[in-house]
Amino acid sequence: MSEDSAARLAALGLSLPEAPSPAANYVPFHIFNGFLFISGQLSRTAGESVIGKLGADVSVEDGQKAAQLACLNILAQAQAATGSLERISQALRLTGYVNATPDFSEHPKVINGASDLLVAVLGDRGRHTRAAVGMGSLPFGVAVEVDAIFAIT
Amino acid sequence: MSEDSAARLAALGLSLPEAPSPAANYVPFHIFNGFLFISGQLSRTAGESVIGKLGADVSVEDGQKAAQLACLNILAQAQAATGSLERISQALRLTGYVNATPDFSEHPKVINGASDLLVAVLGDRGRHTRAAVGMGSLPFGVAVEVDAIFAIT
Amino acid sequence: MSEDSAARLAALGLSLPEAPSPAANYVPFHIFNGFLFISGQLSRTAGESVIGKLGADVSVEDGQKAAQLACLNILAQAQAATGSLERISQALRLTGYVNATPDFSEHPKVINGASDLLVAVLGDRGRHTRAAVGMGSLPFGVAVEVDAIFAIT
Repeated sequence: MSEDSAARLAALGLSLPEAPSPAANYVPFHIFNGFLFISGQLSRTAGESVIGKLGADVSVEDGQKAAQLACLNILAQAQAATGSLERISQALRLTGYVNATPDFSEHPKVINGASDLLVAVLGDRGRHTRAAVGMGSLPFGVAVEVDAIFAIT
Repeated sequence: MSEDSAARLAALGLSLPEAPSPAANYVPFHIFNGFLFISGQLSRTAGESVIGKLGADVSVEDGQKAAQLACLNILAQAQAATGSLERISQALRLTGYVNATPDFSEHPKVINGASDLLVAVLGDRGRHTRAAVGMGSLPFGVAVEVDAIFAIT
Repeated sequence: MSEDSAARLAALGLSLPEAPSPAANYVPFHIFNGFLFISGQLSRTAGESVIGKLGADVSVEDGQKAAQLACLNILAQAQAATGSLERISQALRLTGYVNATPDFSEHPKVINGASDLLVAVLGDRGRHTRAAVGMGSLPFGVAVEVDAIFAIT
């Protein structure tokens, strides 16, 4: 990670987790024609996890924390893929999957936990298009999953 | 918007809404390497919205209307991004997220409300790949969300 | 299909189904700038289908079979799009949508039914990034839907 990005993370009291190994038979990232694809990352790391459903046992605040955690994993994979977050020229797309009850409606607020982190760490290069949607269920019962596409140099 | 596209919309009794501001900390579109990414657009505009669940309080017909509304927002964003819908060489991908009860099964019919509009306005350039899926919940309780990727010149 | 891929499929006791016609107003694939986009494919072919929900009436094993079936349709579309699976230089992204009950948590295991097939047929070129998520419902009540992006030559 570049010193800039590391410093910004540290200023937030955060650091990159180990890039998680895939939970199954796939790879964490691919680079093709200037695009970096990153697999869906869950709201859990070696040391921490947010499990449960928004609208039931997970508050919006904890959901934001979950989205931030998933996004830290996204950044860890991007770092592993590129060797330096400075190679990211633009975050293009983020899809935020929220594990939620049928009547939940605050998905945008939850996924801001991921979006705010990307912008805090990457500045304008972190500003992305996104979709935030509500899932019936997610792997291992996590509260949030996020996948991403970046433009890199 | 080009006169052609505007004329086709008008012939349908439709016009482009204002391109909606993002509901949170993200951007509505990005252009990179000939690809135009558009953020998830909801079934609501300044003047109109379709809220609720397919299989419960929203009929298939109203769901199609919802998908059309989300797609009008997609087109409004594409127009804002490109300056002219004529710059769209091909609609590549549309993902249609339907807010639905667990036993709902007519997602393709619902998302045709978006697909039919794209083809009506853009002709063959509007013919896209797509996925139509059923969500447990969506932001603000809307009935339909749609995101898109276009090829542009 | 190349003889290699055909031989690998045959060794698994499988063969490509007819590339399914779209269920609605869209196209099964698009090629642009070296990317091949394939529409969401369902866990059903002319001769076979897996309908129902993981966590209720579909076991994990049957879910894996469903994911394999959806992936066979993906490969059939890729074959139709390219004329030869040898033109696939890399499977870039697979999104696996699992029709599941709210407490289901084994999505990665289910979607391995698709991932394992891609790798078995394409080797390292089949190793992809992916997201596996739980849907409230899917078209026609199928158990699994899969969409994909490939890099082609």
